[in-house]
Amino acid sequence: MPYLLGIDVGTSSTKSELFNLEGESVAVAQKEYPIISPNVGYAEEDPENGWWQALQDTVKAVLKTSKIDPREILGVCVSGTNACVAVDREGKAIINAIMQLDNRSVGYAEKIREAVGWERVFEITGNRIASGTFLAPTILWIKENMPKVFEKTYKFMVPTGFITMKLTGKYTIDLSRCSTTLLYKIGREKGWSHELCKILGIPVEKLPEAYISKEVVGEVTDEASKLTGLAKGTPVVAGCMDTVGAAVGSAVLEKGDAFYTLGTLGRFCYCMDEPKFDIRFINICHAVEERWLAMALMQGGGLSMKWYRDELASYAVEKAKVSGKPAYQLIDEEAEEATVGSRGIIFLPYLSGEKSPIWDPYARGVLFGFTAMHKRGEIARAVMEGVAYSLRHNIEVFEEAGFSVQKIRMGGGGAKSRLWRKIIADVTGKAVEVTKMLATETFGDALIAGLGVKVYRSLGEVKEMVEVEEELEPDTINHRRYSEIFKVYKNLYMHLKEDFLELSKIGF
Amino acid sequence: MPYLLGIDVGTSSTKSELFNLEGESVAVAQKEYPIISPNVGYAEEDPENGWWQALQDTVKAVLKTSKIDPREILGVCVSGTNACVAVDREGKAIINAIMQLDNRSVGYAEKIREAVGWERVFEITGNRIASGTFLAPTILWIKENMPKVFEKTYKFMVPTGFITMKLTGKYTIDLSRCSTTLLYKIGREKGWSHELCKILGIPVEKLPEAYISKEVVGEVTDEASKLTGLAKGTPVVAGCMDTVGAAVGSAVLEKGDAFYTLGTLGRFCYCMDEPKFDIRFINICHAVEERWLAMALMQGGGLSMKWYRDELASYAVEKAKVSGKPAYQLIDEEAEEATVGSRGIIFLPYLSGEKSPIWDPYARGVLFGFTAMHKRGEIARAVMEGVAYSLRHNIEVFEEAGFSVQKIRMGGGGAKSRLWRKIIADVTGKAVEVTKMLATETFGDALIAGLGVKVYRSLGEVKEMVEVEEELEPDTINHRRYSEIFKVYKNLYMHLKEDFLELSKIGF
Repeated sequence: MPYLLGIDVGTSSTKSELFNLEGESVAVAQKEYPIISPNVGYAEEDPENGWWQALQDTVKAVLKTSKIDPREILGVCVSGTNACVAVDREGKAIINAIMQLDNRSVGYAEKIREAVGWERVFEITGNRIASGTFLAPTILWIKENMPKVFEKTYKFMVPTGFITMKLTGKYTIDLSRCSTTLLYKIGREKGWSHELCKILGIPVEKLPEAYISKEVVGEVTDEASKLTGLAKGTPVVAGCMDTVGAAVGSAVLEKGDAFYTLGTLGRFCYCMDEPKFDIRFINICHAVEERWLAMALMQGGGLSMKWYRDELASYAVEKAKVSGKPAYQLIDEEAEEATVGSRGIIFLPYLSGEKSPIWDPYARGVLFGFTAMHKRGEIARAVMEGVAYSLRHNIEVFEEAGFSVQKIRMGGGGAKSRLWRKIIADVTGKAVEVTKMLATETFGDALIAGLGVKVYRSLGEVKEMVEVEEELEPDTINHRRYSEIFKVYKNLYMHLKEDFLELSKIGF
Repeated sequence: MPYLLGIDVGTSSTKSELFNLEGESVAVAQKEYPIISPNVGYAEEDPENGWWQALQDTVKAVLKTSKIDPREILGVCVSGTNACVAVDREGKAIINAIMQLDNRSVGYAEKIREAVGWERVFEITGNRIASGTFLAPTILWIKENMPKVFEKTYKFMVPTGFITMKLTGKYTIDLSRCSTTLLYKIGREKGWSHELCKILGIPVEKLPEAYISKEVVGEVTDEASKLTGLAKGTPVVAGCMDTVGAAVGSAVLEKGDAFYTLGTLGRFCYCMDEPKFDIRFINICHAVEERWLAMALMQGGGLSMKWYRDELASYAVEKAKVSGKPAYQLIDEEAEEATVGSRGIIFLPYLSGEKSPIWDPYARGVLFGFTAMHKRGEIARAVMEGVAYSLRHNIEVFEEAGFSVQKIRMGGGGAKSRLWRKIIADVTGKAVEVTKMLATETFGDALIAGLGVKVYRSLGEVKEMVEVEEELEPDTINHRRYSEIFKVYKNLYMHLKEDFLELSKIGF
């Protein structure tokens, strides 16, 4: 019986999941590794003992659990988070990977702005200049601060490409991750930008060869076979950005398809069939030809609810221990008692600054409008509503830019909450379809591998694999009410913008 | 052995406390009664079965506990909250008392503004036009909405005067409570304003006779003696506003003396020896001749911390049950771990609107500036700091108006927290003296009774009765840091002012 293997290299763990061709999960394994922070603001991981070891362990676990013959795996696809890995000619990471959370290259984003100008960078790469999210500032940091490492680096890679290299021996990067280097032309004409590389002093030779996600770039080597248990010769595709995996796993493949992942962070992706870029979003090549994704990155999502649970709703954590119900469910039950708009409490979910659409690293969380009469369930509901407003804020910008959003496919851990789903639909005024599978990265990876090895021959076939669990229509009355409150929500940020900055100026 | 009896008629309970002439509490009793709310925004109490019954019960309890001969009580003084009591010629309340929390007369404040103008009202009464806090709008409400009650009313009284009348048979009001009628001239020249009474259509005859707080207005009647156990003929002074009792009980009697009561609400009082009024404060006649108090009323105080405890810090409430430590102490312990400025969290304590100095009924609570890294102890500390900023905000206005504040005498339940005391000193930059007695109303009442019956013959003698438990000097470095944050605190309100109003406009 044939299978496909999806692997997601995340920030805190790697997950390997085996699917049969009907899209059913057959076995799954996950292994965590630590974020290493040698200095304040630094966030590193160990590509060898962290990611590569986790990959070996989880793949072996999956093979063991499923008891399948590894030769039945038709293809492998690795997706992943963003990080900069300096790799030598022997395929070894020279230093720890510098993760996208790492702050050290903030000043180098500024240098790129000065050297090239944001307009020209946007023209070439379709994206804004931002550190962490994009690779170029980190490469420049290495060049200036670790010149010997820079010199010794054969290729600057991303986690996906690094793991794919470990499996196949090929130094590659896929087009979705090319899109987050800030060095690649992502429009109809593709390729590394020699202009940018020259201005920034990054030799093009130090960048890996680029492939579309679904393209088979190599086969599992003898050595990798021994380490992982995969069959030698198993085809491996170029892989993709984690969000692209999730997009495919949610069947967001045609123009106008949109999906929202309510994970720790929030991600809203909109599928385009032409390279029509807006600078307020992250624009990337999709896993298939002639498709692009415009992404809105929201820093507050499940993160907001997790913080609320841990710092303000300890009652739920305690009660969960005795009741057997998860704390989030207990919080939901109280939030359900609250009414639309939480009697005037508005939550700004900028607990870690905000990216799309305001791009303000100084923004912070705000709980606005409570009175002595408010109950904690109303605060919980306000947190959910605030996260929904931040999504609507982005959708509004999409629509202003001419992208029409009809309905939203929703996944991520936050989608487990039926109340939150409903709030998302009512706040945005869009129909929401919750996918049966909530974590769709590895599923999407498997589908991409399937496209690569031609198990699936069309996007239509892929779309049929994705099942929807629930469809919600927005309630008109609630939506009208939320629209009034949403105006206040937007004003709050405008009115507090300089106070956020001031906090940073006085040293917080 | 001689004693003095202080009685405070509060919003939720009446407290009777017996003191010996050394100022030691000999016996105390307290009895609660409910707030009655027949309509949204209404807040009433039953003067007969509530206050008067509670007075009888608590006085009897005090006499029983102390086992003293009632004839040893040299004098009685009643202080109290504000409310409007319509009383007939038989000394009976015709309807329930309308409490200062009651919102029904908001529109009548507007009518006074239109009919007289705020400047003229300020000129005559030394105060701003506000409903609830002042009696006149409520009297007008009764006149227009309950004309028969208005007609039948012999005197419009306040709780203090009502209880004093029950004890003595005399219909009186003291000068501090005259000050909160908005119908009385409180400067050097005193008396009911015939001008205002005429314009507003309130017959002066319906207002009680006014006396300075410490003046003996009558003696306990035979009937009252039977009901309370007090000796017939015991002298009763005119009584005072609760805050005036607290001022005397904190020895705030000379020009420049200032005190801060951190109770459910916050009160800052500044003693003046001339009638120099600023419209941002409540200006009242003190309990002694040639003294006035300027009062700043802060809606958030202990109320903020209580709300935090009940809605956001349930862990402390739960832990208190098993640890035996009060929840507030557990919260304090976590807040002590946080650093000055709570790493940028700023709390606006407007959980019930705000009075001084911004006078904005639409203002609401705000928690500003948290990130995913913040811990709950930092939120608790931010709540304390926010309350301290609101005090500093008022002190700043006092100093702008030319009142120099040297040090602050502090009392109220919030002063139990050593951390909060310290924060108050560091935020304001003023020395803080915490009185040994934290609830000083009944103690002050007893001292006023003592002045009235000439047990004490000078203010100096009264001042010597008040003991200070702890003196705190502000820390210069912390104060400088808080001064930077305080600027942001003030800006937050300015920046959010219209959003508060907008919430109310959209129906919250």
